[in-house]
Amino acid sequence: MPRYRDLSHTARPSDAPRVIEPKNPLRTLDPGALEMLKVAQEEHIETVFDRFVAQQPQCGFGYKGVCCRICIAGPCRVKTEDGPGSKGICGATAFTIVSRNLVRAIAGGTASHSEHSRHVLHTAHAMVEGNAPDYSIKSPEKLHKLASQLGVPNVNRDDREILKDVTEIAYEDFGRYQDRPLAFLDNFLIEQRRKKFQSTNIMPRSIDGTVTELIAQTAMGVDSDPVNLIFGGLKGSLADLAGEYVGTKLSDVLFGVPEPIVSESNLGVINPKMVNIAVHGHNPVLSEMVVAAARRMKDEAKKAGAEGVNIVGICCTGNELLMREGVYLATSSASQEMAIMTGALDAMVLDIQCIYPAVQQLAECFHTKVITTEGIMKMPSAQHISFNAETAMEDAEKLVRIAIDAFKNRDPKKISIPNERHNVVAGFSIEAMIDIFSKVNPERPMSVLTDAILNGQLKGVVQMAGCNNLKRPQDESHIEILKELVKNDILVVATGCSAGAFAKFGLMSPLAVDAYAGDGLKSFLRTLEEANPQLTTGLPLVFHIGACVDNSRGMDLVMAMAEELGVDVPKVPFAASAPEAMHEKAVAIGTYCVTMGLPTHVGSMPFLEGSDLVYGIATQIAHDVFGGNFIFEMDPKVAAQKIMDALEYRTWKLRVHKQASEKYDTQIAQGW
Amino acid sequence: MPRYRDLSHTARPSDAPRVIEPKNPLRTLDPGALEMLKVAQEEHIETVFDRFVAQQPQCGFGYKGVCCRICIAGPCRVKTEDGPGSKGICGATAFTIVSRNLVRAIAGGTASHSEHSRHVLHTAHAMVEGNAPDYSIKSPEKLHKLASQLGVPNVNRDDREILKDVTEIAYEDFGRYQDRPLAFLDNFLIEQRRKKFQSTNIMPRSIDGTVTELIAQTAMGVDSDPVNLIFGGLKGSLADLAGEYVGTKLSDVLFGVPEPIVSESNLGVINPKMVNIAVHGHNPVLSEMVVAAARRMKDEAKKAGAEGVNIVGICCTGNELLMREGVYLATSSASQEMAIMTGALDAMVLDIQCIYPAVQQLAECFHTKVITTEGIMKMPSAQHISFNAETAMEDAEKLVRIAIDAFKNRDPKKISIPNERHNVVAGFSIEAMIDIFSKVNPERPMSVLTDAILNGQLKGVVQMAGCNNLKRPQDESHIEILKELVKNDILVVATGCSAGAFAKFGLMSPLAVDAYAGDGLKSFLRTLEEANPQLTTGLPLVFHIGACVDNSRGMDLVMAMAEELGVDVPKVPFAASAPEAMHEKAVAIGTYCVTMGLPTHVGSMPFLEGSDLVYGIATQIAHDVFGGNFIFEMDPKVAAQKIMDALEYRTWKLRVHKQASEKYDTQIAQGW
Repeated sequence: MPRYRDLSHTARPSDAPRVIEPKNPLRTLDPGALEMLKVAQEEHIETVFDRFVAQQPQCGFGYKGVCCRICIAGPCRVKTEDGPGSKGICGATAFTIVSRNLVRAIAGGTASHSEHSRHVLHTAHAMVEGNAPDYSIKSPEKLHKLASQLGVPNVNRDDREILKDVTEIAYEDFGRYQDRPLAFLDNFLIEQRRKKFQSTNIMPRSIDGTVTELIAQTAMGVDSDPVNLIFGGLKGSLADLAGEYVGTKLSDVLFGVPEPIVSESNLGVINPKMVNIAVHGHNPVLSEMVVAAARRMKDEAKKAGAEGVNIVGICCTGNELLMREGVYLATSSASQEMAIMTGALDAMVLDIQCIYPAVQQLAECFHTKVITTEGIMKMPSAQHISFNAETAMEDAEKLVRIAIDAFKNRDPKKISIPNERHNVVAGFSIEAMIDIFSKVNPERPMSVLTDAILNGQLKGVVQMAGCNNLKRPQDESHIEILKELVKNDILVVATGCSAGAFAKFGLMSPLAVDAYAGDGLKSFLRTLEEANPQLTTGLPLVFHIGACVDNSRGMDLVMAMAEELGVDVPKVPFAASAPEAMHEKAVAIGTYCVTMGLPTHVGSMPFLEGSDLVYGIATQIAHDVFGGNFIFEMDPKVAAQKIMDALEYRTWKLRVHKQASEKYDTQIAQGW
Repeated sequence: MPRYRDLSHTARPSDAPRVIEPKNPLRTLDPGALEMLKVAQEEHIETVFDRFVAQQPQCGFGYKGVCCRICIAGPCRVKTEDGPGSKGICGATAFTIVSRNLVRAIAGGTASHSEHSRHVLHTAHAMVEGNAPDYSIKSPEKLHKLASQLGVPNVNRDDREILKDVTEIAYEDFGRYQDRPLAFLDNFLIEQRRKKFQSTNIMPRSIDGTVTELIAQTAMGVDSDPVNLIFGGLKGSLADLAGEYVGTKLSDVLFGVPEPIVSESNLGVINPKMVNIAVHGHNPVLSEMVVAAARRMKDEAKKAGAEGVNIVGICCTGNELLMREGVYLATSSASQEMAIMTGALDAMVLDIQCIYPAVQQLAECFHTKVITTEGIMKMPSAQHISFNAETAMEDAEKLVRIAIDAFKNRDPKKISIPNERHNVVAGFSIEAMIDIFSKVNPERPMSVLTDAILNGQLKGVVQMAGCNNLKRPQDESHIEILKELVKNDILVVATGCSAGAFAKFGLMSPLAVDAYAGDGLKSFLRTLEEANPQLTTGLPLVFHIGACVDNSRGMDLVMAMAEELGVDVPKVPFAASAPEAMHEKAVAIGTYCVTMGLPTHVGSMPFLEGSDLVYGIATQIAHDVFGGNFIFEMDPKVAAQKIMDALEYRTWKLRVHKQASEKYDTQIAQGW
């Protein structure tokens, strides 16, 4: 049952959502970050914003994707329109070079999610083998559902036995060599998409095998056909989705299925009176344990003179903890340095991905301890504490203890915490949404959403996702696009640093609904609230569905809508948008969104403008084959309009279809 | 028993080895290529040499490895010595960016060999399952030896059953998730190296898993520690070696263990009177079948007016066929276009790797059909015939038939075949070498080689390998270094396009021994010849040990020498050299050579000069830890000297050690 837990235990956050107007010369809109930037300026501290400026102008060849460094005869660049300078030394033309680079980026994203999920899987496996005593099965319901989807017997069996079978299947998905599709993909797809992927020959066989194949396919002297390369990339993106499914679903089993929860966000959540530990990265395996350790070590913190231990999240580890534990989200990836600059962050505990190598150097100007924990992620000069599933609580306690020790070394003169913190209502897993919808329609909960679209109350659903990319001011595109969408009665679900942006600005609070939602969206949310009196506060303007690995939840949502509507995904008024995409993971996610059949906006240009052909494949041919396509648009207002146009077309077709079929039904009833 | 098969069936090749002096403005030393370049100039045909010139000057940031395109906030470049411009936007410094790029190149090489070997493995597996009737077990001896090394029972069992078990183990190596080392690595290592790799934590768990892990480790926001990154790269290089072992050993089982064989090389092997088919790429699975089909289709060729079908090899597919079938080696990778420009090449049949996308465009100026055969390797406008293990002979016949048809469309005015062809003696697998040595010392064949080093007859062994890289004139560095080494009594074994260079220039003929070998090497070879009267011609100046995947044979050789000497690899006077490295595979191979404990010369700079730290790790710290190190040296004469210095040091230490131990033995015998 959805419920609200209010974890606020310090001064109240400000009430109103706060959006600073764009065109800010400091390259961020985030009020917390802006306040810290003043400190940076006064103290001459280098931040990402300085480095961004120093990198301008960026290399045009690289930007267009026509620089090739795949063999050491290079680097080669497409320098001319024709003649020998229009190709690499081997003869690779722009479309080959662009496609190879793009496919390698997708492989990079797939490998990244694969590693994240493999770690969750190792932990689950170690637990069922009895080697990870600090973990347990938090959601037997999710496990049983997952088992039944995967065809694992789940009646009259010990949960650990069931989970063991599930982990074996997941392991096989990483390394399978038989020509069978991925269990963690095939079993979650609706029939129409499964057939589409089979007929276009892009069903991956194994996750790691697909990454390896793509790297080999793009090596010097192998594939030069942009279409074949891009189709390889599509296969890779489905392997990425499978990897995400492993991560999301097993994380839910181990740490619980997110339910609506109240928390707070922005740098003001850093508490000057407490030992502050930022967990930063992506993997809940570590950070969940740090949260548990912190709860146990309150007394130790008190002995050191603090009121307790305050865990705050950064980036997607923050999203994971916010969704499940209501842990404060201090900030998102691009402003990670700002947390250290508050002078009150005692430790920054890192797992993997989106972590600036700059943080250690910056931390040396403060008392903050930076600690890496994973074998594949170290940082010169930073402390490394190996975190293992087998000794998880012991390792987590070590980490918390380092922070408690560091607390004693704080320099009060350097403490400067922005007075920025906003209410956040997060935790909207699909299960939670269905639970809320079922109070309106217990038989067909998803029809609550689809009917709202069919009857014009809502104009569709948009999944906002992705990173920050300083090519535009931090958060500006996220915020601008969101405002346009919600004003026009679109239900927005969000992940990653997009969700982080909304949280930081107070746009995930119920108050934001009044300020920004159009009448249709407002009434849709009010109906849900009225049907769910157990909710102790209102619903937020945006539904936070998780970390970047949880973009898989969005795919579950759109497929549930498609099933409810009796159509394939390309007919569902559902779009994706990554307004400030930065990481290779975003390239992989965007690609599977297109493959799944979604109009997919990207507001920062992947390196592909060097080939009109590849651009055309991404924006047009993809649509012809899969029903989804990329919309590359940097201007957030124009982007919002393009997204809404795509939704409107789908909604119009759906309604026409529905009217026609109703008319037909009436005719049948009338005996025609 | 080694034997010579003389497959020459057209006019005799020229007798003398031919080396044109360096500093050629046309950027190749290859006399065959030079002749074709005159045609290119007259006919205004663009070749790789034009494109190389058009790419100059190449980007200095990319060349130094300080350009980062790993996320789309970039491209970033290290522009300044300090300040914000000295780092990427995320804060990655030069050593992080250089290491990440380098490790991704190693992963690229590992993925490439992995795909090659996986294809051989699929074929072997399909065969034992009864689904690939055109393949068979050509070397039961090799299979039995392999089975016994892997712990597979091989007594009183059907060979196919044994091979099935072997293939299952190999498959597991690609996708294993349990924390056990790779069977195709662990079982082939000498004890000292195994322990070294275990203690330094670089034993890979699975081939595909390691590639994925490295790509994830080098993604934005993950590892920034150059030492940890490089150690990841070392692990990757061992996964590469394991992949090569799978390829080499299973290819020997399926297609036979190479034995000394006579053939010919350079473009003159293209026969104007025959249907000429070039097989180009790397994988014997396809090309062996094309050779078999061609033999069956002689009559069909005759009906078309040709004297028969002439298969010629290019690049490493050429090396594979030369080693096992005595097929002519037409040319090496950098001069692949020249084969088409002869006007007498009817088809170029491609598998994977080192294939210029330029060949199709060039072929359109001639009658040559370019045909791709693998799912991950297509080429715009080229014909694609899917080649499958299940229908191998049928597919191969289709390919040959296309060539026979094309033969009819030849334009006699465009035919211009260089009068360049040289005798080649190839086929020196380790088994073949041991067989030859055993005629001198049946009990301890490898002592024939090690004793020759200890007694000063030889000064060591050098494995020459790698590609062409037009940063120096094609083949110049290979030839220059070889001349220096053999003059100084070093036994050279060669693979890949290095072997191709020697073959093309007649340096793999017995005649070259008289012309270039020092007295020690000469007498060593003469002793072997005298002990092996069954050999019908002399031994060559250089031992051809195979394709680039067969660099694994060199590792077997050096470990056999180490065992014979009772020392670890770093004490064996054995070095590796890739004078013109180009492909990511070469980066992976060079890295495992260093990891195995070899001084490893590379004559073309990998992208790492942007970090003194990484340069230092590669050239010095690697030596402290593993006993091997990179020697980056572009000048071939200087490089040869550096290689010889490294060998001399090892030989000196060995001799001192031997004298000391002999003295000690004497003392013991005298009762001290």
